[in-house]
Amino acid sequence: MPRKIIIDTDPGVDDAMAIFFALKSPELDVIGLTTIFGNVHTDLATVNALRLLEIAGRPEIPVAKGADDPMVRDYDGPVPYVHGDDGQGNLHLPPPAGRAVDQTAAEFIVEQVMAAPGEVTLVPVGPLTNIGLALRLEPRIAQNVREVVLMGGAAFCPGNASPAAEANIRNDPEAADLVFGAPWQVTMVGLDVTHNTILGPDHIDAYAALDNPIARHITRILPHYRKFFEDWYPIQGIYVHDSSAVAYVLDPALFKVERYPVRVDCTSGISRGKTWPGTGRRLLPDWEGRPAANICVEVDAHRLVELELERIRA
Amino acid sequence: MPRKIIIDTDPGVDDAMAIFFALKSPELDVIGLTTIFGNVHTDLATVNALRLLEIAGRPEIPVAKGADDPMVRDYDGPVPYVHGDDGQGNLHLPPPAGRAVDQTAAEFIVEQVMAAPGEVTLVPVGPLTNIGLALRLEPRIAQNVREVVLMGGAAFCPGNASPAAEANIRNDPEAADLVFGAPWQVTMVGLDVTHNTILGPDHIDAYAALDNPIARHITRILPHYRKFFEDWYPIQGIYVHDSSAVAYVLDPALFKVERYPVRVDCTSGISRGKTWPGTGRRLLPDWEGRPAANICVEVDAHRLVELELERIRA
Repeated sequence: MPRKIIIDTDPGVDDAMAIFFALKSPELDVIGLTTIFGNVHTDLATVNALRLLEIAGRPEIPVAKGADDPMVRDYDGPVPYVHGDDGQGNLHLPPPAGRAVDQTAAEFIVEQVMAAPGEVTLVPVGPLTNIGLALRLEPRIAQNVREVVLMGGAAFCPGNASPAAEANIRNDPEAADLVFGAPWQVTMVGLDVTHNTILGPDHIDAYAALDNPIARHITRILPHYRKFFEDWYPIQGIYVHDSSAVAYVLDPALFKVERYPVRVDCTSGISRGKTWPGTGRRLLPDWEGRPAANICVEVDAHRLVELELERIRA
Repeated sequence: MPRKIIIDTDPGVDDAMAIFFALKSPELDVIGLTTIFGNVHTDLATVNALRLLEIAGRPEIPVAKGADDPMVRDYDGPVPYVHGDDGQGNLHLPPPAGRAVDQTAAEFIVEQVMAAPGEVTLVPVGPLTNIGLALRLEPRIAQNVREVVLMGGAAFCPGNASPAAEANIRNDPEAADLVFGAPWQVTMVGLDVTHNTILGPDHIDAYAALDNPIARHITRILPHYRKFFEDWYPIQGIYVHDSSAVAYVLDPALFKVERYPVRVDCTSGISRGKTWPGTGRRLLPDWEGRPAANICVEVDAHRLVELELERIRA
């Protein structure tokens, strides 16, 4: 029985790769995509989610549109210098044929989780607003999901949206703090591992040599995204952010995890959006009573990158 | 010409070791001790500073009493479970013969720095209140010190007073943010290196085998302090905090440094007291215009511990 997952996503170039990686993995049953602002506005994220499913030949998979804004603050806006004006490397594709379902992302998540207790894994790879709203709508989802595997956060390394914070968490710290505080198993696949996982020029060439619609789309969207990384970071290629969360679902043995309760800085100060593992022998009150999250601290980056390529090739 | 230093200190067991280490180093001329709350109240810190100089046979070195409280908030109080009720491992020594000078610590620092432009190195190993007050009293000390080498902060590792913050910085984040923002060379010797520098059982035994008043005092005060570390941390022995700042002044080559501007979290949230290096390709506005601090990120711990033992033995 393949494992049911819902990917909550703001596509985004690396979101597209993560969605394809999941769709091409026979161990996974992608029962829906839910959309969120982040890399792009939620409207565009929704359009892109529909397009990506059509490119993959899976238009029957439902897409539910999520929140337009964070739970408390305003959305800082899209990052076209990373993902392109269209979120897909400035390809400016034609509109999708399909449309989103008549449910919000939070409603969709609640319905799917409660309909299959213990079976659904949530894989948020954008800001955690929809997951926070779903918890607000139906707190019992915490007892009824299988687990939550999210891309986001920076536990023991600098952030990328600020010295403190990773971009997904920074986009809605209040939602993130709800998600880390709920009584479910959260695994944090953050910059501690994704900044150590590089898809380099050789692998990018290997994607370019593949002749299937998914690989062709990846090859078309990567150059704009790659240019951002090569301009901003001392690497050749790209960091593998969102696909790392899918990789964790497929094979947790790729990662070394440490277990800590996590709090998210929700002040308006310089640490806003920082994910703090509750370290130290005695937990301070702010961390008390929180479940321990799995924090990915090391990764077999080579095997991860190879696994994704294998799946896209298949 | 030995190098003039002022140690700003809250003795404290490791403060005592750091003071002795400096006094026994011929390259250094300890021109005064200034006292601060932290490990103990400032009154007791002052008494202890006087006692330590008398134990070392250097009662002529002036001691100036510093602030009783942080610049903005209240002092959280002493930590007798770390340093003892008396700050010296519960030895309860007789009172010192001498007394502090009739200047505040800030006044003493300003006078000494301005009297010898370019010559005085400040070595704060406690909360940075006195240094912040000295900057307020006479901002030109920034152009007139030789440099500031402080024990405090945690750049790329967890804190010890909280998951975010190291204890000295946590005790007065507002003062620390002033110190890191002033136009002088600050070197941060923090938990990134001191939590990798252990004085283990063999070295503690080596101190016990020495027959001089300084070594005997160290041997008497260490057991209480050591018990704290062995109860709270997975180590045998103690972390070398304050002496690491003295070691940097003596031999910067013991350390690998990276240069970043630093901001200190001054909110009342969970990140209060965190020292954030301004990482990332583009500095965010909060870090702009700040001088780059030297942040010690690696240390030759073995050579450091040996150097201190050699000096105490001499």
